Amino acid sequence: MTEMRIVFLGTGGGMPSRNRGLPSIAVKTSGTVILMDCGEGTQRQFISSGIGFKKEFHIFITHHHGDHVLGLPGLLFTMAMSGRVDPVWIYGPGGTGELLERLMHPRMGRIPFKYFVREMKTGDSVRIKNLTVGCTSSDHTQEVLAYYIQEDSRPGKMREDFLDSLGVPRGPLWGRLQRGKPIIYGGRTITPEEAVGPPRRGRRIVYTGDTRPCENIVEIAREADVLIHDATFDNSMRDEANIEGHSTAMQAAEIASKANVSLLCLFHISPRYNNPETLLLEARTIFPNSIVAEDLMDIRVPYR
Amino acid sequence: MTEMRIVFLGTGGGMPSRNRGLPSIAVKTSGTVILMDCGEGTQRQFISSGIGFKKEFHIFITHHHGDHVLGLPGLLFTMAMSGRVDPVWIYGPGGTGELLERLMHPRMGRIPFKYFVREMKTGDSVRIKNLTVGCTSSDHTQEVLAYYIQEDSRPGKMREDFLDSLGVPRGPLWGRLQRGKPIIYGGRTITPEEAVGPPRRGRRIVYTGDTRPCENIVEIAREADVLIHDATFDNSMRDEANIEGHSTAMQAAEIASKANVSLLCLFHISPRYNNPETLLLEARTIFPNSIVAEDLMDIRVPYR
Repeated sequence: MTEMRIVFLGTGGGMPSRNRGLPSIAVKTSGTVILMDCGEGTQRQFISSGIGFKKEFHIFITHHHGDHVLGLPGLLFTMAMSGRVDPVWIYGPGGTGELLERLMHPRMGRIPFKYFVREMKTGDSVRIKNLTVGCTSSDHTQEVLAYYIQEDSRPGKMREDFLDSLGVPRGPLWGRLQRGKPIIYGGRTITPEEAVGPPRRGRRIVYTGDTRPCENIVEIAREADVLIHDATFDNSMRDEANIEGHSTAMQAAEIASKANVSLLCLFHISPRYNNPETLLLEARTIFPNSIVAEDLMDIRVPYR
Repeated sequence: MTEMRIVFLGTGGGMPSRNRGLPSIAVKTSGTVILMDCGEGTQRQFISSGIGFKKEFHIFITHHHGDHVLGLPGLLFTMAMSGRVDPVWIYGPGGTGELLERLMHPRMGRIPFKYFVREMKTGDSVRIKNLTVGCTSSDHTQEVLAYYIQEDSRPGKMREDFLDSLGVPRGPLWGRLQRGKPIIYGGRTITPEEAVGPPRRGRRIVYTGDTRPCENIVEIAREADVLIHDATFDNSMRDEANIEGHSTAMQAAEIASKANVSLLCLFHISPRYNNPETLLLEARTIFPNSIVAEDLMDIRVPYR
């Protein structure tokens, strides 16, 4: 049972407020950190969260608006000052390499480790240990990638009653069956199909980046465990949301409902909402299992 | 009596900690904000301090290490989102224009107001209302400008007893004398020299940026009201301070003592000092009127 946690580092949008930093989400699993977006202040939130700078690090950038990327250079410098020597991987839409090269002015300091940039487009995915991280296009005022993190399926549960009734001892023979190989025991061939249940699907997290309500999101979020969705505005500001390329809390809930996710996290909250109660209530009228993401909130993602 | 306040927005150095953001100091006087350095997180500290983004703004950058400049783009974007239309002035050492141009990637967003960059070198100064802001060279691992903010002298105090003894009524005649013009009253010529005391010098604030102990600082800090000095390390780390181009708290106190300032603020505190008591105690053995700058500390600078 590998733990998978989501730590919200910054949950605001556009500009920070007293309560919310700029967008950044850390997903921690198996000694690896997958960071999605890196707004100004991310490095300090990292320090407050106690995650540490020496783990395997993969940073996925949804798009290039300042509030989503301006924490990158400082994060890299602070990793360097913290003694990091291992490389860091950075992913984002086309132009991410050029953006980063511009932001990392040599007079600002020196990074002793390598950082590799991979530019992605709709449909691309990368493998990170037992995870696949892939993307589709959101619908904003510039190119935005929404990301999914899909954990590999785990083998099915052993049919213990069946194997016990045949007297097969727990140990290597059970392992062989679980890995999909037949065994012979007491003169009888036992196939994995009879001894092991269906594979259990891995967990899935989806993060939209900045977006209007969008069918691509429904597609990648189908049956996801957690959907982290742009919910910049409340329903009374639907028109403004549309003009600025964002969603209302209600629209986020509509997407969550269509995609039949387990949990919706309202994210990228405008600084105008000192109290996000309005957003929460309107989302819950459509999709009851909604919460508002808060800075340094730490969620464990359970297996279904 | 114009109020002059120093608000420390970030007081750490190198990397932030739970308690300290990266270097930035706001000096507020007469509706004008003079910001010195702009580390990552400055815009959020501004919001917490309640200073507001629409005042006349002059930003002085000491040097180009990431921890001193990476808050600049986000600050400008947030000013724009807050409805600013008036220009902003940015000053710094040679190369500041090129650095800013690189940092302000057009895909990050649009700034509707103008920002003017003026590159400065040792001895240069600019006039801002009744202030002169000038610079000298500090001694660090790259070119660093230390800044002084010098308020203009105020006219001397009226010799009230003398004028009352002659029966000169308070009002326009007193004003004329204070502006340095003679008057004739009751057939007698009264000169400003006999009616007004010597001019009273304005307040002076000095900020070193990152520096080793340095004679140039003593020169610009002589008789200053407030000296904000690099105090990255304690005395046991004197060698490391020297190698990295910083000062210890004790060295900062030695400079404050030589320059005979009124108040020393220890600044750019390394994240290793959870509790800065060590730094404070060692500074006070040399220069008793020392304090450790803390984030969001707000100091009123009195007239001498």
